[in-house]
Amino acid sequence: MNPPLAPVRVALLGHGTVGGSLRRLLHEHRDHVRLATGRDVEICAVLVRDPERHRLEVGEALAPLVTESLDVVLESRPDVVCEAMGGLEPTRGHLLRVLGAGIPVVTANKQLVARHGTELFARAAEAGAQLRFEASVCGAVPIVRMLRESLAATRIERLLGILNGTTNYMLSKMEATGAAYDDALAEAQELGYAEPDPTEDVEGLDAAAKLAILAGIAFGTTVDIDNVRATGISGVRAADVAHAAELGYRIRLIGRAERLTAADDTTSVLLDVTPMLVPIAHPLATIVGATNAVLVDGDPFGRLVVQGAGAGGPETASALAGDLVSVMGSEPSFLTTDPHVATLPIAPADARRDRHFVRMQVVDQPGVLATVAGALAARDISIERVLQQRADDGHATLVLTTHPCTPGALSAALAGVASTDRSVLPMLELA
Amino acid sequence: MNPPLAPVRVALLGHGTVGGSLRRLLHEHRDHVRLATGRDVEICAVLVRDPERHRLEVGEALAPLVTESLDVVLESRPDVVCEAMGGLEPTRGHLLRVLGAGIPVVTANKQLVARHGTELFARAAEAGAQLRFEASVCGAVPIVRMLRESLAATRIERLLGILNGTTNYMLSKMEATGAAYDDALAEAQELGYAEPDPTEDVEGLDAAAKLAILAGIAFGTTVDIDNVRATGISGVRAADVAHAAELGYRIRLIGRAERLTAADDTTSVLLDVTPMLVPIAHPLATIVGATNAVLVDGDPFGRLVVQGAGAGGPETASALAGDLVSVMGSEPSFLTTDPHVATLPIAPADARRDRHFVRMQVVDQPGVLATVAGALAARDISIERVLQQRADDGHATLVLTTHPCTPGALSAALAGVASTDRSVLPMLELA
Repeated sequence: MNPPLAPVRVALLGHGTVGGSLRRLLHEHRDHVRLATGRDVEICAVLVRDPERHRLEVGEALAPLVTESLDVVLESRPDVVCEAMGGLEPTRGHLLRVLGAGIPVVTANKQLVARHGTELFARAAEAGAQLRFEASVCGAVPIVRMLRESLAATRIERLLGILNGTTNYMLSKMEATGAAYDDALAEAQELGYAEPDPTEDVEGLDAAAKLAILAGIAFGTTVDIDNVRATGISGVRAADVAHAAELGYRIRLIGRAERLTAADDTTSVLLDVTPMLVPIAHPLATIVGATNAVLVDGDPFGRLVVQGAGAGGPETASALAGDLVSVMGSEPSFLTTDPHVATLPIAPADARRDRHFVRMQVVDQPGVLATVAGALAARDISIERVLQQRADDGHATLVLTTHPCTPGALSAALAGVASTDRSVLPMLELA
Repeated sequence: MNPPLAPVRVALLGHGTVGGSLRRLLHEHRDHVRLATGRDVEICAVLVRDPERHRLEVGEALAPLVTESLDVVLESRPDVVCEAMGGLEPTRGHLLRVLGAGIPVVTANKQLVARHGTELFARAAEAGAQLRFEASVCGAVPIVRMLRESLAATRIERLLGILNGTTNYMLSKMEATGAAYDDALAEAQELGYAEPDPTEDVEGLDAAAKLAILAGIAFGTTVDIDNVRATGISGVRAADVAHAAELGYRIRLIGRAERLTAADDTTSVLLDVTPMLVPIAHPLATIVGATNAVLVDGDPFGRLVVQGAGAGGPETASALAGDLVSVMGSEPSFLTTDPHVATLPIAPADARRDRHFVRMQVVDQPGVLATVAGALAARDISIERVLQQRADDGHATLVLTTHPCTPGALSAALAGVASTDRSVLPMLELA
């Protein structure tokens, strides 16, 4: 039995929804924290933009030092800094200084880790201070810890994720009710799942940032977020959802990172975010509503899937608290090596060969299918299934699935086909 | 940049499927281990029952000290001991000695942790040595880490798990093909999922041991494995599976640990392992085949579900390796407090109120349903749905679901009903 250790001094950067939740959580569950770590937590300083206003709003509840100055925060001698202020600047500068001072950091900042992770990890490694970022990806879902610790001594082959809850809510809604995209979006906005400007979510940018972070850890490589090809769901129509269902699929916005080995044995990482047709028996097809899920395939663990709340202040705060507990219990050197050491090249878009779903309106006249089939055959693309549905207006809906082909070949093949309202979506395999 | 640290000396207790996999894994993925911890791993000793025979079988590949003596193992000055020898004795004695010497232990031994966890944790706490046991529950599924670290500062309300892959394989098979129980078992045995004596799996004892371990961590309480009421699947008939499907349910063997608050505000933990009807939209209904899955509900993280391979040598070895990495990176005091501090009482069987599914053969005569309904009403049990199916032999199948009631009341109500081939199964709610 050792004598009780001194409390761990924690500084909070930011005291909004996430920061406030974290402070409450650490207070409410202090017994659990003591149980795991043998130590108490003491908030020693809180950085906010406007301390005066903040004091007025929060009142006396927030006893410790409230300041707008990082210098004052550092003078309060924190053992750990929890960052929940968001934004790229001045946050980046703050964290570089904190890490540089040898103080471990726990952060919820997705954009910062995705855009400046390399720089932050280098600083952390140099100073021997941990940088933990579970809360920056998929809220409460413990995927970062799973990749960095549980699977530390394994080889990851593939990571697939539903990384954005808003779009998953919308797609589930469209599939459950037949709603149009615009109606699903309006409802998501009403419920507060989607922002008034939904671009980040619906165009796949939020998912791309998360994928960049996860792929970086899973494959130990540096992923420039701008190298993640992102297609959002704004082009997905109710008709796509309905025809996908007929074929036994659901449409999900899938972030995908996959190790590819070329014929010459060189390895690269395929990275994309795109709406895909997912077989209904696939674990990711069963994920409905504003939920996140990540599937990891590798050796020798097989397949692991983890799902949960990907957003929300209290949910994100619980991930920050979990990281904080682990930092309190870690040796300073643990996980401080920059995880991005190997530099696997990013595979070009045409390295991927998927089956594809194609839906289009064509003029309903004899020979139209022959034309389409011929255009595909000319690019060596075989058709797997085809379905033609006549409308009264002289048009027909043509739905087909192809055998595996590159997106480039398919796009080139379809370029010469006269059609309107065309959707082309890759299909995920069950295994 | 710190100078490179000395390799971590690891002793293996046991070198069968799991131990051998672990040794290979640590060698194959040594770069990943170094990346996470900044250190190399060196196997310093291997404990086996018969070193002579072992040397002949394994050959020169196993360079380090091979011995049947724990003394010799301890003299090799291990920094960590990985236990993959299984069994209760002499393993228990070995681990008490190792922990007593202040050496952290990583174990894959489910029965040992379930039966002697309290004693082992006390020794670990006393000596300030970590005891990690991810590999003892659900193979590669990182549920222990999730509960102890990711959710360290949260309040867990409920844990539901598919904790046995063999029975889940059998139930999925019965539901996919209409197979009888005996045929599903024979097939599971042929595939090596089930032992020649399948009692541990099919009677729910394996799941009960896992539930005891998980409930202990989730609720910080000591769970005597003999207090977990376990009902297996050997009473589940093809007819149950079929009628459940008609009602929109699948049958799963569910391990359940739930915090109950009584009217007088006292808290207890409900613990049982039992086949349940699970709504098809429930995350646990979608788990098919020899897979494990654990769902955790709590505050403020909401709901997390994790699924993966629950058994298999290499899969289990990957969990041992993950724990080993974390031990290498932890402060000695981390997670050494005995997690079982609170002593929440175990709720009596009749504390649970579930809806129930009842299937039985009755004599097909007017008034039989009235008799059954009357017997239930006499115990204040309302019927939710009822379905009567006549056979040609003068019998009828009666399938009904009740509103929530205690198992005791239902059993008492049905005691007076003349019927044969009766199944009574609790039903899981969607939320």
